Amino acid sequence: MTSLFLRTLRDDPAEAEVVSHRLLVRAGYIRRAAPGIYTWLPLGLRVLRNVERVVREEMDAVGGQEVLFPALLPREPYEATGRWTEYGDGIFRLKDRKQADYLLAPTHEEMFTLLVKDLYSSYKDLPLLAYQVQTKYRDEARPRAGLLRGREFVMKDAYSFDVDDAGLERSYARQREAYLRVFARLGLEVVVVSATSGAMGGSRSEEFLHPTPVGEDTYVRSPGGYAANVEAVTTVVPPEQPLEGLPAAHVEDTPGTPTIESLVAHLQEAFPRDDRAWEAGDTLKNVLVVLRHPDGRREPLAVGVPGDRDVDTARLEASLAPAVVEPFGAEDFAAHPELAKGYIGPGVLGPNAPLGEDGERAAGTIRYLLDPRVVTGTRWVTGADALGRHVLDLVAGRDFAADGTVEAAEVREGDPAPDGSGPLEAARGMEMGHIFALGRRYAEALGLTVLDENGKQVTVTMGSYGIGVSRALAAVAEAGADEQGLVWPVAVAPAQVHVVAAGKGDDVFAYAEQLSSDLVASGLDVLLDDRPKVSPGVKFKDSELLGMPYVVRVGRRLAEGVVELVDRRTGEVTDLPVGGATTGAVLSAVRGG
Amino acid sequence: MTSLFLRTLRDDPAEAEVVSHRLLVRAGYIRRAAPGIYTWLPLGLRVLRNVERVVREEMDAVGGQEVLFPALLPREPYEATGRWTEYGDGIFRLKDRKQADYLLAPTHEEMFTLLVKDLYSSYKDLPLLAYQVQTKYRDEARPRAGLLRGREFVMKDAYSFDVDDAGLERSYARQREAYLRVFARLGLEVVVVSATSGAMGGSRSEEFLHPTPVGEDTYVRSPGGYAANVEAVTTVVPPEQPLEGLPAAHVEDTPGTPTIESLVAHLQEAFPRDDRAWEAGDTLKNVLVVLRHPDGRREPLAVGVPGDRDVDTARLEASLAPAVVEPFGAEDFAAHPELAKGYIGPGVLGPNAPLGEDGERAAGTIRYLLDPRVVTGTRWVTGADALGRHVLDLVAGRDFAADGTVEAAEVREGDPAPDGSGPLEAARGMEMGHIFALGRRYAEALGLTVLDENGKQVTVTMGSYGIGVSRALAAVAEAGADEQGLVWPVAVAPAQVHVVAAGKGDDVFAYAEQLSSDLVASGLDVLLDDRPKVSPGVKFKDSELLGMPYVVRVGRRLAEGVVELVDRRTGEVTDLPVGGATTGAVLSAVRGG
Repeated sequence: MTSLFLRTLRDDPAEAEVVSHRLLVRAGYIRRAAPGIYTWLPLGLRVLRNVERVVREEMDAVGGQEVLFPALLPREPYEATGRWTEYGDGIFRLKDRKQADYLLAPTHEEMFTLLVKDLYSSYKDLPLLAYQVQTKYRDEARPRAGLLRGREFVMKDAYSFDVDDAGLERSYARQREAYLRVFARLGLEVVVVSATSGAMGGSRSEEFLHPTPVGEDTYVRSPGGYAANVEAVTTVVPPEQPLEGLPAAHVEDTPGTPTIESLVAHLQEAFPRDDRAWEAGDTLKNVLVVLRHPDGRREPLAVGVPGDRDVDTARLEASLAPAVVEPFGAEDFAAHPELAKGYIGPGVLGPNAPLGEDGERAAGTIRYLLDPRVVTGTRWVTGADALGRHVLDLVAGRDFAADGTVEAAEVREGDPAPDGSGPLEAARGMEMGHIFALGRRYAEALGLTVLDENGKQVTVTMGSYGIGVSRALAAVAEAGADEQGLVWPVAVAPAQVHVVAAGKGDDVFAYAEQLSSDLVASGLDVLLDDRPKVSPGVKFKDSELLGMPYVVRVGRRLAEGVVELVDRRTGEVTDLPVGGATTGAVLSAVRGG
Repeated sequence: MTSLFLRTLRDDPAEAEVVSHRLLVRAGYIRRAAPGIYTWLPLGLRVLRNVERVVREEMDAVGGQEVLFPALLPREPYEATGRWTEYGDGIFRLKDRKQADYLLAPTHEEMFTLLVKDLYSSYKDLPLLAYQVQTKYRDEARPRAGLLRGREFVMKDAYSFDVDDAGLERSYARQREAYLRVFARLGLEVVVVSATSGAMGGSRSEEFLHPTPVGEDTYVRSPGGYAANVEAVTTVVPPEQPLEGLPAAHVEDTPGTPTIESLVAHLQEAFPRDDRAWEAGDTLKNVLVVLRHPDGRREPLAVGVPGDRDVDTARLEASLAPAVVEPFGAEDFAAHPELAKGYIGPGVLGPNAPLGEDGERAAGTIRYLLDPRVVTGTRWVTGADALGRHVLDLVAGRDFAADGTVEAAEVREGDPAPDGSGPLEAARGMEMGHIFALGRRYAEALGLTVLDENGKQVTVTMGSYGIGVSRALAAVAEAGADEQGLVWPVAVAPAQVHVVAAGKGDDVFAYAEQLSSDLVASGLDVLLDDRPKVSPGVKFKDSELLGMPYVVRVGRRLAEGVVELVDRRTGEVTDLPVGGATTGAVLSAVRGG
């Protein structure tokens, strides 16, 4: 440490929001270069390389082949798959001196697809799993929490190529297991949750979330083990009800009831029921939004949900990706005079709207999607498309229909898990990895086919698998830290042992140096605090801040033939007699720990 | 090789200009992603990592501490040192979603300086040598020759920080030696040449050039061991001559002599000399250019050189960096009516021009710099600032003066080396590394000071040291290749041994696999060609193309108990008896080779 390029800081960095960020900066592991952009100092770089090594070993163990793509890439392949547009402001774009368009790649599906297309042509070449550990870029709107959400970051991205769906299933399962091994080796608890694919496309995906209060993702879980990203929760659909014997729909005056709350109050007063009070869940709320499609087209959309639930924009967007959801504004209302604001009912929407003169759906008719709970035979109070009027006993499947269903209503704690494993509860997590069964979207867009066994051209099916390497490092730091500082697991620590020469005598320094050499010779990485004029107290504080898993204190008690081995995590101190067995004792602590 | 992500190509890639590029693509080491931007395939990535390892080991051996900076950096630090502007079109610039300016860094002097400023404050913290192996970007006007001149490339850049000049000298010398060791380990011949600092700034620099006909740099060398970049050659200045006894200057009519050639012909006819014929070297040519300064200011400049030499723009720019040289156009001539095109003489330039009315130099007077050969007492024929007229016997130091001297005249083969080591000859080389004694330019611009032993703030002095890692790989490939393909040195080969199962029997494959396992167990990296339906001829061709330093052919002669060990470089074939000693025999060939 007399020569190490390191300065520990007493004060927290002003911009630090979370523990890992605060401690990594204070302990001299990283340094901010710009918002969301960090420099790795020597200790930080060692941890980063260790995390990378764990990831590489597990990728290699499942037959992964490492390659390395550029970060700076031309627009064309991303244009071909639509992602140049879909990513919106989320990526960095630039022009070269010839005014050609480039981007700093957020992921590399296109490039891997084109590379395989370039090199391979037969089913015999597959399956293939290729991966890279590479610097990636996203122009986050709000870079935050240090390495947890950066704009330049290290990611492992892997891509599988198979000739058929069964092959993709195998590749996907193999990556899933490799991911679980990676996080286990990093000592990082993860929950695998069903997720939606977003801009990535594809049929199926799962996220590996690390449960942590500083996480940005909300997910839900059930006592029976179900776990999903909120966007991916599917609604438990109630059974259809018989239509026989239901009363006819009737329109009623309901003055001054443009909100669900005012409507329920009015119903309770004007139309009291014997069996139970009116509830928001008895009403059907029709929410209007505008979909912005990737080609720029704006499409009005009505979504009908039970009145006790809001539309969750993230869930709606996930259902309708790649379109994004925008507000339905005053000018949109002006363009649709059939909409009675606050009293909108199915009658003017989708298949229920009056047909045009040609007997076909009229041109300006708004598409109408329903919450899956609105099954045939359910009865609703909803707008009658006239100010101050609602319709009661409107029966789904008898009195109105829709263009389809959509997962858009908010998920609430207590909702049943889709697999019947009990009520859902909400939790927060940080996305550590994401695996996608992409299917053929990229291969189709870029023309990746191979000859199958029968000499027929078939489109390759793909998976894509990412781990945020620098983010995983921060999560490990966050999970391990205590009041005093960082606490690294042996697997990724910059050094497994921190030998602190905590005394004044030359013998202390000489012994500390000798012990360090012996430990290095035994294959350990050792950090030696040999600073001559720093007090033992400051050295101990620094050793706690820096967080090596084991600290050997060589101090006053050396005269009695004793050094102290401290387990950084538990704080447990073991006296070690100085002599031939000291190195062995440290070694076995490290290897056992 | 049955599972390796590799496809060797029969045909040369269309864009390949040099051997290394052609072979690296054909052998499946790299693949072009965009002009000057390449993807590393598995074999290529292994070589890249090996080259990086050699560089890291030598940096660590001289006390280098590895860090890692972002590639995406904010404008401000580069603005503070002027490099944001100086780099012109040579760097990639971009804006983030908040319209803040960023660049993809070409080198990191600013960031290292700011980091040290952030962390260190005392002379006791120095010296410091920090380095990184990092992806860099330059928007080259003409990316060419594959990895030899790319737009995204891997570089090792190191920076030294010292408290005084003697410290910088030591740091510089230590890097210089480390560089020589790196190139020796890579098997890459290099010549260390004096160079100019260009946009980097600083007092002194040397380039490590690999002599190769595909090199882009011309350098000069002498039989006595002098070597320099042409831009860095200093002119051998002749002794001053006594002014006594020289004839007076006289203006003569020299109609139709706007060029040196026509002037010499006219002199020979109109003013023949007894002792020798007139030569271009007897005339003084005054060349006009415009300097574009970093702040955008345009400054006209006149450069006087002997008429037998052209002005070398690269030398002139190197002398006047960071200004760049632009042509003196028609509008510039229009703004300076005192210039008689084709007959421009010193009389209207610099200190020789008529003074203004206030006795000071007139506002529009053009700055005048002279070639160092134009010493006091030399006699010249030059323009008389009137069409069709020249002045003869114009004596430097008597009849005219200048604002200074400048290294601008072209260097020619046969010119004397500045250190007296003989006549210069030209050679071509490729820049492999460049080391700069930067001095205090960056530290001053960014305010990096430390307290010295006496408690006084002193500005830190710096060095900057770069090796093009991916370029070095290409140079190694270029230097080793032969007609059949790549030939890697053991130090960086993707595998030291290529075991080729070249036969049909199961025993051939079984033995090849067993031998490979044994070699791997002995610590070697082995590439095994176990492709079942590929002919021995194709496999041998591939082994030549791929270029592992040693090839073991397991084939028909296995029945006789013999395998063949081929030295890829020499082609020498050694029969190895199959048995307990086979692995050892291969090992000793690799370790001896």
